Amino acid sequence: MSEHKEQYECIQRLRHAPAVSDSGWELFIHRTERKQVKRGAYLVNAGERVSYAYFCITGLFRLFYTLEDGKEFIKSFSLSNEFVTSYGAMISGEPSYFSIQALEDSAVIEIPYAVLQELSDRSHEWERFVRKSVEQLYLKKEERERELLFLSAAERLEAFRKKYPDLELRIPQYQIASYLGISPVSLSRIINQKRN
Amino acid sequence: MSEHKEQYECIQRLRHAPAVSDSGWELFIHRTERKQVKRGAYLVNAGERVSYAYFCITGLFRLFYTLEDGKEFIKSFSLSNEFVTSYGAMISGEPSYFSIQALEDSAVIEIPYAVLQELSDRSHEWERFVRKSVEQLYLKKEERERELLFLSAAERLEAFRKKYPDLELRIPQYQIASYLGISPVSLSRIINQKRN
Repeated sequence: MSEHKEQYECIQRLRHAPAVSDSGWELFIHRTERKQVKRGAYLVNAGERVSYAYFCITGLFRLFYTLEDGKEFIKSFSLSNEFVTSYGAMISGEPSYFSIQALEDSAVIEIPYAVLQELSDRSHEWERFVRKSVEQLYLKKEERERELLFLSAAERLEAFRKKYPDLELRIPQYQIASYLGISPVSLSRIINQKRN
Repeated sequence: MSEHKEQYECIQRLRHAPAVSDSGWELFIHRTERKQVKRGAYLVNAGERVSYAYFCITGLFRLFYTLEDGKEFIKSFSLSNEFVTSYGAMISGEPSYFSIQALEDSAVIEIPYAVLQELSDRSHEWERFVRKSVEQLYLKKEERERELLFLSAAERLEAFRKKYPDLELRIPQYQIASYLGISPVSLSRIINQKRN
């Protein structure tokens, strides 16, 4: 595993991450795996149970619901140095309601839920690490909730551009529309209005 | 404080709560306060910073956003034996985007954020208690997100009735409409259709 140790620096350097001892990281590195995920591949399929959390080392993922009419709604994107996980499904043991798909060739740390539980049981510092990580997921969700409630489509586009400065160049426009909750046609109209 | 010790049984008996030692609970009881909250009073005002988490012993609260056009959107209700808190604002130090108001005369445990942090710093068991509590908040948010995305207004009413069996009798209909994201007129129509 040691040749991959530098791959774990991104998770060790997380802004919100509390101090975890070297021996704690050794254990984490030993019990988790670095994986390549090809563009288009799924980390989580809606309807299936979830046994792993993932941390994105490099790449890009979309987390999306498939609605009754077949349309997709992208709840969020996950970029490098972020957790990418169906956390609710994992901790509740229920099937995931949404899917997670790589939009680019990506690399992740695959963390079995059992390992997260074991580390949390054994050590206060890992318990804290998990708590802080859940809090970040919670903050991200609250922010998204507000954007959908308070902002117009044009303002949501602005917020998207600010939050993900280079994403507009990395993904097709219909996926941005699916994130903003509008049709691709409406998105084109907004972009053209902004240009004029 | 000891005369109020039985008031804390509700939080000690939380289904998801991990074991916390007696001395841990003594400290918690010593550092927190039981408060009465009159119907109509606010625990949190949108735009203000939040220094406390609350646990509802008895009563009923609504957590709501006031939108740009002055309309209100109820993001959730909190009943007895639940946390009632603007958690994101509290941990981020940012002003709360939503308000929390008592819909009935209620009683809460008021928990200073500094106490939660201190307990978590000192003890693994409290760190775990906080982690599990955040997870419950997260699960509640994910469920609500799904309901708003997947369910029709009539189905959301069904889900509301299932989740809150007696609430329809306790609050005015326009507040149910504000929770379902529809107008009071639409709600009346749906209720009448269901009756016929």
